[in-house]
Amino acid sequence: MFPQSRFTAVPVFLLAVVFSGCASTPPADNAAEPALAWAIALHGGAGTLGADTADDVRDGYLESLEIALTAGKELLEGGASALDTVEHVVVILEDDPRFNAGRGAVFNAAGGHELDASIMDGSTLACGAVAGVRTVRNPIRLARAVMERTRHVLLGGEGAEEFADTVGVERVDPEYFGTERRRRALERRLADKDKGTVGVVALDRHGNIAAGTSTGGLTAKMYGRIGDSPVVGAGTYADNRRCAVSGTGVGEEFIRHSVAYSVGAMMEYEGLDLAAAVDRVVDETLEPGIGGIIALDPQGRIAMRYNTPSMLRGAADSSGRFEVKIWD
Amino acid sequence: MFPQSRFTAVPVFLLAVVFSGCASTPPADNAAEPALAWAIALHGGAGTLGADTADDVRDGYLESLEIALTAGKELLEGGASALDTVEHVVVILEDDPRFNAGRGAVFNAAGGHELDASIMDGSTLACGAVAGVRTVRNPIRLARAVMERTRHVLLGGEGAEEFADTVGVERVDPEYFGTERRRRALERRLADKDKGTVGVVALDRHGNIAAGTSTGGLTAKMYGRIGDSPVVGAGTYADNRRCAVSGTGVGEEFIRHSVAYSVGAMMEYEGLDLAAAVDRVVDETLEPGIGGIIALDPQGRIAMRYNTPSMLRGAADSSGRFEVKIWD
Repeated sequence: MFPQSRFTAVPVFLLAVVFSGCASTPPADNAAEPALAWAIALHGGAGTLGADTADDVRDGYLESLEIALTAGKELLEGGASALDTVEHVVVILEDDPRFNAGRGAVFNAAGGHELDASIMDGSTLACGAVAGVRTVRNPIRLARAVMERTRHVLLGGEGAEEFADTVGVERVDPEYFGTERRRRALERRLADKDKGTVGVVALDRHGNIAAGTSTGGLTAKMYGRIGDSPVVGAGTYADNRRCAVSGTGVGEEFIRHSVAYSVGAMMEYEGLDLAAAVDRVVDETLEPGIGGIIALDPQGRIAMRYNTPSMLRGAADSSGRFEVKIWD
Repeated sequence: MFPQSRFTAVPVFLLAVVFSGCASTPPADNAAEPALAWAIALHGGAGTLGADTADDVRDGYLESLEIALTAGKELLEGGASALDTVEHVVVILEDDPRFNAGRGAVFNAAGGHELDASIMDGSTLACGAVAGVRTVRNPIRLARAVMERTRHVLLGGEGAEEFADTVGVERVDPEYFGTERRRRALERRLADKDKGTVGVVALDRHGNIAAGTSTGGLTAKMYGRIGDSPVVGAGTYADNRRCAVSGTGVGEEFIRHSVAYSVGAMMEYEGLDLAAAVDRVVDETLEPGIGGIIALDPQGRIAMRYNTPSMLRGAADSSGRFEVKIWD
């Protein structure tokens, strides 16, 4: 489990690069570019943070992103699999109350929490997901258990929670997820700032990629609403032959356009590189203001694009890249 | 509602063409081929019916398919929209206890029923779906209500059922769904013969296409398991610029490969015609024995392929085609 104390213990040494204004997508594909040994990208949600964001709020997000990214970097450097890294880093983000996943999840219209998550292994196309769980501390862990310990891909509601007990995945009192900030958001229906799903994509030293996504959904969503995060092909996808993708935003639009799958389809069937495919999805498929995606190909190239005012995100790789950002 | 008495009142005048052995896919695409005024295809599930199938069982299935197909044909001839036609014909198949959707749905491992359905309008990409409902007589009706009367795409479980009450979609006692045949199947774990989702794709006189799918899932599935039928992009997809698709089979594989969406992606990005895209999915993407798909393009061309021993299916169009089949 992720100790709260690390939030203040880790030096925020990278804030200086955060506002440098560099493009959020990497340079165009170059076939001669050597493959990286490992790479990771993560997001903490696309949203509407603006120039009026308080310094302490901004620094808090960046600190949280940096902590998660550092954990991912260290795992991958040490030879951990992409799948293990994705799960571990998503757990860190779920446990962090700053993000709308796990603790800190938004409230639905009924005043409760329903959590969705999915994970996919690009080396085997194995995948697992859970939808509408209310008492599972780390939905991404349960998604992985669905993937590895059932013949199914997606479990919902009470059935998923009963399964958690059979495989020893921790359950908590629903009160655990609630934070005062999210309760105020429900009362004021401040849905727009709360698109903040979390997600991670990773390439490991063995050449495998993986993706995972976890969310509390939309503030004041209808009871029972399932978004794109537990939908493999919409909010999450990974295939070693193509790319790994995690999305954040208005999940309905991600489902409608099979967003996560479509990036790889454009790469394979149309010959686009990762950046071009991601650009097309964010600039053409999705309406402005809908959300963003992070993606990574088997060479370790990373694309992070969004059409909202902000997207909490970070990227690191074996070349020394390490950056966390909120805006361009 | 569909009166049971019609099951015996309609003459089974088409059995003669059923076993003619013609290919299950149409001829290769021909750009000069004139568009049809309307077209419809439906399925009642891919499965393992073999040569030993009793004559009365075979004839019963064909009669049911013919009744549903006739209703669709009459609606489209009369100018009904593809969306209305898909919904209406799926309702007929849901109400028919011969199919694993609505009444006649299989039992899950807990001895209950959990129903999934989705519908999509190819003219707008509007879509709606429900997962894990236990008391909704016609899940496809509720899926359409989600599409038209919420800001969401997918509702699950109790939340979906509460929504049914608010929009006046009929609920029934769970006993309604159970049939003796399905209970025996649960007791014997006869899962293989019960992949029988139902689905419909249609092109209307206005040039619009739509798709819908409904299922009881897999016999003895885990409580809470959600398959591909309520997953837009996996079991159902429709886009006027591409095609309409409904799948049947082991839903996990349809989710893993975003099957319904992938057909259109191959058409748009790779330039394949409908038949070639469907062939590739059934012959290459899916392992043998997994299932089948029906698909239709905006010109009214129909493709119906499966890699199981049988697929209950039918097709009709404005050129006079009208056929129902179980085998090739």
